[in-house]
Amino acid sequence: MAPTALVFLAGGAEEMETVIVVDVLRRGGVETVLAGLEGSGPVQCSRHVTVVPDCSVEDALTKHDSYDLVVIPGGLGGAKAIAASEKAGAILKKQRDNSGYIGAICAGPIALLSHQLHLGAMITSHPSVKDQLSGAFQYTEGRVVVNGKLITSRGPGTAIEFALALVEALQGAAKRAEVAGPMVVHPGV
Amino acid sequence: MAPTALVFLAGGAEEMETVIVVDVLRRGGVETVLAGLEGSGPVQCSRHVTVVPDCSVEDALTKHDSYDLVVIPGGLGGAKAIAASEKAGAILKKQRDNSGYIGAICAGPIALLSHQLHLGAMITSHPSVKDQLSGAFQYTEGRVVVNGKLITSRGPGTAIEFALALVEALQGAAKRAEVAGPMVVHPGV
Ligand SMILES: [Cu+]
Repeated sequence: MAPTALVFLAGGAEEMETVIVVDVLRRGGVETVLAGLEGSGPVQCSRHVTVVPDCSVEDALTKHDSYDLVVIPGGLGGAKAIAASEKAGAILKKQRDNSGYIGAICAGPIALLSHQLHLGAMITSHPSVKDQLSGAFQYTEGRVVVNGKLITSRGPGTAIEFALALVEALQGAAKRAEVAGPMVVHPGV
Repeated sequence: MAPTALVFLAGGAEEMETVIVVDVLRRGGVETVLAGLEGSGPVQCSRHVTVVPDCSVEDALTKHDSYDLVVIPGGLGGAKAIAASEKAGAILKKQRDNSGYIGAICAGPIALLSHQLHLGAMITSHPSVKDQLSGAFQYTEGRVVVNGKLITSRGPGTAIEFALALVEALQGAAKRAEVAGPMVVHPGV
């Protein structure tokens, strides 16, 4: 059975980070649901690209009892909405309790802090939110940081590397290489 | 006055390439219109992400008489639709006649061939469409190829480099660097 992923979509999400994660996970054979935090309607992202989620978060939870991976994209507006949402917090806490994978990129890790998840773990984030996070986590400046079931990254420019790391975690290194080839990723990645 | 860009959106477009180009151009201060080839409704992209264009191509032409840049994203479905469209062909020919910039990534350059634009120019494309293009163009394997007003590139993994090259063409190298920094692009880019 294909592994499953839920990617949150909230207003102000960084559209590159959101779309790269969903697209690359699907290329990697992960059954991926882009779940609207505020329902199933179109969402305006941080640079005014409008993306329509596959369904609401509530509907996503009826599709699968649990997901192998839950992803928090960046974009300060989107990340703040996820950080402030009790609904998102409940999903993320259940994910942590189930020992499922959590991915967070850019400003996304602020939701780990607000929901008190994986405190003390080794993480990274967008440089602009480092000061908020460095007290509560073991903060590093790696482009993608894998700490057990928690995978974090820094920004739109690291989103492909982040998404490939998620594919590798769920599907293995061979699948990662199979996905990366036709995408013509940077030779350094 | 801000430079302007029209980015085509057609069914089957590669969503990473489309969204990265629009987002990065906007970060670079380029007034960018995501123009639906088949109207203003939501478009299903190649990996089933649904993106809503800003308006139809027809409406985009009423916003500005002409654009400084017209972009053909990849995704085989989207590129084929643009390659087959008389409407897109007319916009691209006018762009060439006006000495405006044209950008094409991944499978996008097949539309240059079908509309007989810049034949003989130095280009690149996704490796999978190289054989269709190498007879009519001077084909290279650079990640981003700038040949006068024609800028081409290879795939989702080169899309950030491509978008930054478009920003540089329209807004200069200092603006490119200003945009790239906060995106945390790969040090090799
Ligand atoms: Cu493509």
